Amino acid sequence: MIKKNKFKIGLIQISLSKDPDKNLKKAVDWITKAAKKGAQVICLPELFRSQYFCQSENIDYFNLAETIPGPSTEAISKVAKQNKVVVVVPVFEKRALGIYHNSLAVIDTKGKISGIYRKMHIPDDPSYYEKFYFTPGDLGYKSFDTEYGNIGTLICWDQWYPEAARLTTLQGAAVLFYPTAIGWHPHEKKEHGKAQFESWQIIQRSHAIANGVYVAAVNRIGLEKENSKTAGIEFWGSSFVADPQGVIIAQASADKEEIIIAEVDLNRIEYIRRNWPFLRDRRIESYQDISKRFLK
Amino acid sequence: MIKKNKFKIGLIQISLSKDPDKNLKKAVDWITKAAKKGAQVICLPELFRSQYFCQSENIDYFNLAETIPGPSTEAISKVAKQNKVVVVVPVFEKRALGIYHNSLAVIDTKGKISGIYRKMHIPDDPSYYEKFYFTPGDLGYKSFDTEYGNIGTLICWDQWYPEAARLTTLQGAAVLFYPTAIGWHPHEKKEHGKAQFESWQIIQRSHAIANGVYVAAVNRIGLEKENSKTAGIEFWGSSFVADPQGVIIAQASADKEEIIIAEVDLNRIEYIRRNWPFLRDRRIESYQDISKRFLK
Repeated sequence: MIKKNKFKIGLIQISLSKDPDKNLKKAVDWITKAAKKGAQVICLPELFRSQYFCQSENIDYFNLAETIPGPSTEAISKVAKQNKVVVVVPVFEKRALGIYHNSLAVIDTKGKISGIYRKMHIPDDPSYYEKFYFTPGDLGYKSFDTEYGNIGTLICWDQWYPEAARLTTLQGAAVLFYPTAIGWHPHEKKEHGKAQFESWQIIQRSHAIANGVYVAAVNRIGLEKENSKTAGIEFWGSSFVADPQGVIIAQASADKEEIIIAEVDLNRIEYIRRNWPFLRDRRIESYQDISKRFLK
Repeated sequence: MIKKNKFKIGLIQISLSKDPDKNLKKAVDWITKAAKKGAQVICLPELFRSQYFCQSENIDYFNLAETIPGPSTEAISKVAKQNKVVVVVPVFEKRALGIYHNSLAVIDTKGKISGIYRKMHIPDDPSYYEKFYFTPGDLGYKSFDTEYGNIGTLICWDQWYPEAARLTTLQGAAVLFYPTAIGWHPHEKKEHGKAQFESWQIIQRSHAIANGVYVAAVNRIGLEKENSKTAGIEFWGSSFVADPQGVIIAQASADKEEIIIAEVDLNRIEYIRRNWPFLRDRRIESYQDISKRFLK
């Protein structure tokens, strides 16, 4: 194991077509590009094999699912091994007959699957009908001690839950990856778009601050319409990396395909945690009611 | 009980002198002013009776403490009753011989003490030597169902802990008050000041977002030096109110005494929680390890 104090992460922000095979080929190409740019741990957007099918409830879309291991992890294992990179690979996972998860696999530099994470918090809002498709995760919160460093993995809606960020950090993660598919309802963008985007960025920067950890959010771009009659979702891109003080150190555009690279520096984590030692002062004996739904 | 869907909160941002009696009289005057401006629930800055004495460890400073009830709560009870307002009153609390807390009392519109909260998370950093003075709180997290609405109370360093905000919200609070004393070390301000301030604001806005609740941070202003040989702390004011989406709806200056008034609207909380129903999707059965120090 080559453990270093610093490693480079690469966030792949792309648009995705209706053709899963093209999307997989595109992902492989962009992983190669990211590796050439120096990225050592690379993350793809949530459910990158397809367009965001949760815009309606349609049992045919379960056909998009695949097993782990399966075609996505096999193709990406090859490119990971070739380039000696770690890759966070979101997968619409078919686990068993009629049991599906919104998952990710972490693939190591030898092309092996280090483990998987299954999205714990499942949304259900107009055009984000995920509760129809995804069984809630049952593996708890996960970090992976990769060749380059310890990485935590969460998925999209998890990002609104401070509990998830905390529980992943406490496993030793130096960076929390959030592969994501979030965008605007076109009819809402003008009135609510700015506040929605800011909330999304702030909540994730807050996880960096509260935990003294890097945060990397990886979103797709593009307008995806199920058909010509639907308004679709305009994915807002804007993938970013926040440092352990919540400062944004890398930021993608809202509408361009791009790779952003950032350095995760364990010395910076140590420095921030020494200066603002929030983890030191947690009152762990007072938190048990976090496991309650409501207290009235 | 006059319960309404809306109520107005008033945040009193002032400078504080070395004279505790003058500070109390000043607080009473400013509460009267805030009530005249329409504030119904009013909050003072942390430890408002004195300058921020935790800049050094000195046993004589324990003489600044008082009981609850005591002079501060008695004087403020009168002005609360006269103006029919609820007041959040920070107190350096002498609880017993040699047992002190960083506390607050909530005083109701009849001038009675509804209850107290004792700061749970105690910092200890250069010039913020609070662990020397304050025994950690033992009352847990508190909300108060006042005549105007349900308010949650936390104090300063608590603001860095998502657990504290969550546990207070789950008690039904519509707004979380954070009386605060935070500022820059003058020698650090140029290099680190902006990032420190932004972290402070972002973490609190994130509590608003994660919980769908208003957040009100109430800070003091002014440069306070223990003596002419010390650099002191430059308190950064900037008291603010965030709405349940994390949008800043009222913001004070960094260096002026002022009252900021904002409306807490239960319909807005309902609207935000319906649209982004984070409380609905908490995986409460998966959070038990929050009560652990670390997981490795």
